[in-house]
Amino acid sequence: MFESAELGHCISARDYDKAVPKLREALLKAQYELLADKSFPVIIIIGGVDGAGKGETANILNEWMDPRHIHTHAFGEMSDEERERPRMWRYWRALPPRGQTGILFGAWHSDPIVNRVMGKINAAGMELAMEEIVQFERMLADEGALILKFWFHLSKKAQKKRLKALEADAKTRWRVTETDWQRFKRYDKFCQVSEDALRETSTGYAPWQVVEGSDPNYRYLTVGRAVLGALNKRLAGKRLTVSKSAALAPPAVDGRTLLSSLDYNSRLAHKHYAKKLEKYQGQLNLLSRHKKFRQKSLIVVFEGVDAAGKGGAIRRVTGALDARHYNVTPVAAPSEEERAQPYLWRFWRSLPRSGRIAIFDRSWYGRVLVERVEKFCAEEDWMRAYHEINDFEEQLAEAGGIVTKFWLTITKEEQLRRFHERKKTPFKNFKITPDDWRNRKKWGAYETAVCDMIERTSNDHAPWLLIPANDKYFARIEILKTLCERLEAAL
Amino acid sequence: MFESAELGHCISARDYDKAVPKLREALLKAQYELLADKSFPVIIIIGGVDGAGKGETANILNEWMDPRHIHTHAFGEMSDEERERPRMWRYWRALPPRGQTGILFGAWHSDPIVNRVMGKINAAGMELAMEEIVQFERMLADEGALILKFWFHLSKKAQKKRLKALEADAKTRWRVTETDWQRFKRYDKFCQVSEDALRETSTGYAPWQVVEGSDPNYRYLTVGRAVLGALNKRLAGKRLTVSKSAALAPPAVDGRTLLSSLDYNSRLAHKHYAKKLEKYQGQLNLLSRHKKFRQKSLIVVFEGVDAAGKGGAIRRVTGALDARHYNVTPVAAPSEEERAQPYLWRFWRSLPRSGRIAIFDRSWYGRVLVERVEKFCAEEDWMRAYHEINDFEEQLAEAGGIVTKFWLTITKEEQLRRFHERKKTPFKNFKITPDDWRNRKKWGAYETAVCDMIERTSNDHAPWLLIPANDKYFARIEILKTLCERLEAAL
Repeated sequence: MFESAELGHCISARDYDKAVPKLREALLKAQYELLADKSFPVIIIIGGVDGAGKGETANILNEWMDPRHIHTHAFGEMSDEERERPRMWRYWRALPPRGQTGILFGAWHSDPIVNRVMGKINAAGMELAMEEIVQFERMLADEGALILKFWFHLSKKAQKKRLKALEADAKTRWRVTETDWQRFKRYDKFCQVSEDALRETSTGYAPWQVVEGSDPNYRYLTVGRAVLGALNKRLAGKRLTVSKSAALAPPAVDGRTLLSSLDYNSRLAHKHYAKKLEKYQGQLNLLSRHKKFRQKSLIVVFEGVDAAGKGGAIRRVTGALDARHYNVTPVAAPSEEERAQPYLWRFWRSLPRSGRIAIFDRSWYGRVLVERVEKFCAEEDWMRAYHEINDFEEQLAEAGGIVTKFWLTITKEEQLRRFHERKKTPFKNFKITPDDWRNRKKWGAYETAVCDMIERTSNDHAPWLLIPANDKYFARIEILKTLCERLEAAL
Repeated sequence: MFESAELGHCISARDYDKAVPKLREALLKAQYELLADKSFPVIIIIGGVDGAGKGETANILNEWMDPRHIHTHAFGEMSDEERERPRMWRYWRALPPRGQTGILFGAWHSDPIVNRVMGKINAAGMELAMEEIVQFERMLADEGALILKFWFHLSKKAQKKRLKALEADAKTRWRVTETDWQRFKRYDKFCQVSEDALRETSTGYAPWQVVEGSDPNYRYLTVGRAVLGALNKRLAGKRLTVSKSAALAPPAVDGRTLLSSLDYNSRLAHKHYAKKLEKYQGQLNLLSRHKKFRQKSLIVVFEGVDAAGKGGAIRRVTGALDARHYNVTPVAAPSEEERAQPYLWRFWRSLPRSGRIAIFDRSWYGRVLVERVEKFCAEEDWMRAYHEINDFEEQLAEAGGIVTKFWLTITKEEQLRRFHERKKTPFKNFKITPDDWRNRKKWGAYETAVCDMIERTSNDHAPWLLIPANDKYFARIEILKTLCERLEAAL
């Protein structure tokens, strides 16, 4: 893979000086077109061996284009706020919004490669990490991002020469550190691991381009032209066509579903409710202050049909907790800033630090529920969402998140009764809107969506709990009890 | 001040149970009205002695109201991302947007009080901190925030009793730590310092309310009713009237201004420019990599008349820097999330960490320039902005920020020449908009605004540098040279 980047490519100063003005003008023009258009973000990833001109190339792009709309990020040591969240959180923070360009150094590829070279992860761990990257980039591409990945290569001899040359010059001496020489000793291993990594993460929607790093003119022109070409191609409307996912399985022929087989007659008398409420709230409170919980976090998702009692259930959960330890995120229409980012971005914003609890009143599942049923997004978008959500929750779980998802459900008759009750009670009036009546008419479509969702996104580390909620007391106690069990099992 | 909070206030269970349902309903109603209205944020600050029920009161408010729209923040140890920014940054992060409620524990009062009790700051330092708080809260109130501050008090005897009682009960034992007893030893000093602090920071727009903490029923009802009263009063339109600031001084009778006395004929030949550019860019590059700069940050503001060459100057500055170390923030109309916060909030978002450089292409000065001239905000709003901006920049400087502000200015004739040139060059076409021509008609009004701004906001730690920019080469070198000097002086 690196052979063609050891050919000694170079561009004469004359050719370079002739080419640059045109290239700059074209790059700027494309950048402004993108800015006006705001249809997609550009993510430029820079990796490669030390001394191959990675930083200089980022500088050149900033010089050639308008630096006000380019955001460059290098990822050094994690900050403590980053360490307490899933591994990918820092990268989500750094994603450019639509219309802008982000240059990411090292980004998500770097850690696995370095860890593999240092022997901190085995072959299986490496494969897993590469698989994660492929999925993540696929999601970004599906969300419209233009992803360009450049790998700067130098032959072993060239790297040694380059490091020595940098060291010899007083102006550049600072750039060569002890670490660089230590890494140089592992050159062969590094190349071998990177080559594998590049091969596995080079995809149609996010291909790697290997750039020979020895001649500055050559590498600047190569990268500048690649960026220009990709930008113009995309701007010209030749958007990557995403393969349409296969259709979901049709409903069971006997009409039985997960939801229809629940026992909606489950009841709990008020007398028992009050006692159990105290018991489980107390237990939950103790568990949330457990020493071991300080290294964990709890993520609770509440979804359900309208009027199923999500709000009341959430209040019974928060009633057991210290207000300093939880945050409730009600999910409504995304804000302007959120709309300029991939669909899941706004949920990454609200992820809890260690020892904290995040409660979502509605959630990322909106994609496969309301957005699917109301056709707010294309079929291929919600189809791929199952997979994306599974990845997202897996990352939460890996980072110590205890993910628990409740689907609160009531029968159609019970919903009607509650709607009427809400209409009658002046104080609950605000809770019933024309939307609720509209949604009710699509009961069947929602039921299908819910069953598909549960089937595709319930698993050990992030299970769906189906709560028949015709009786509120029963539902609330079930929820509190389940949370206690989930916490107990994890601590 | 604390005497009336040692009277042994209490409310019987019967009276409490009778009062609560009505209070809850009214609180919820007010909260939903605020949510629909989104006209202001509610900031509830909770302070006081340990064991006086601070946490429990926050829990009760979350229970009584809808917890999805209340965000509770406790401020423990600073995270490293917080430590590398001005002291107030963590509080700006926690401010609730309009329509929402934030409960802040300790908040900005806590550190100065504790530091004073521990003898870490002297009386003058304390007074300064209190003055800062008064200014900050005044700014919040002027921006529309409803600020409620509750201080929970216990007499020395009552506190001792309370801590012992908590310790005796297995369920609450965890709440009493070694620190609490250590602090108890300093009860008298703590009370005296707090009493002073409360007196100095109790203002018409953000008064303290001292609450006796011994009886839970009493404190819950007191706080609940205070929140309800303040909310309803504000919702009813009885908004605090802000005293109108005094008028600015009229222009000098001889018509001479700071701007008219600049030498617009300053020129630099291209030959000298190229040499000096290399020299100062090199110098700036070295300074930005200086070891001592890792504990500092550089904040550069570019303001100027249209077509004065801000963009070109910024590119010459970034051309000297490593793309991994700087970020350019172009300031345009605020986003939806930014509009829901105080005016300065969006700039706090972009403050650099240590060792980083933030360049603002236009800035917070929009308030006293375009917003003033175009009447986008009320006179009293831009009048108070001078003061707020000075406070803001002082905090930046205190945290190690090297703040440098450039005003690029050209003559009216030169602007006309450049406008025509831009119109003719297809590539620069996008740079000239009808807005530019409109602004040009208001040349005089802008000139007055600029002179007022410079007079009121230029000072040692954040000076304005006036750059006559009829000659771009001259202007760019002046800017680079100034930045080098500012950095050299600070390192």
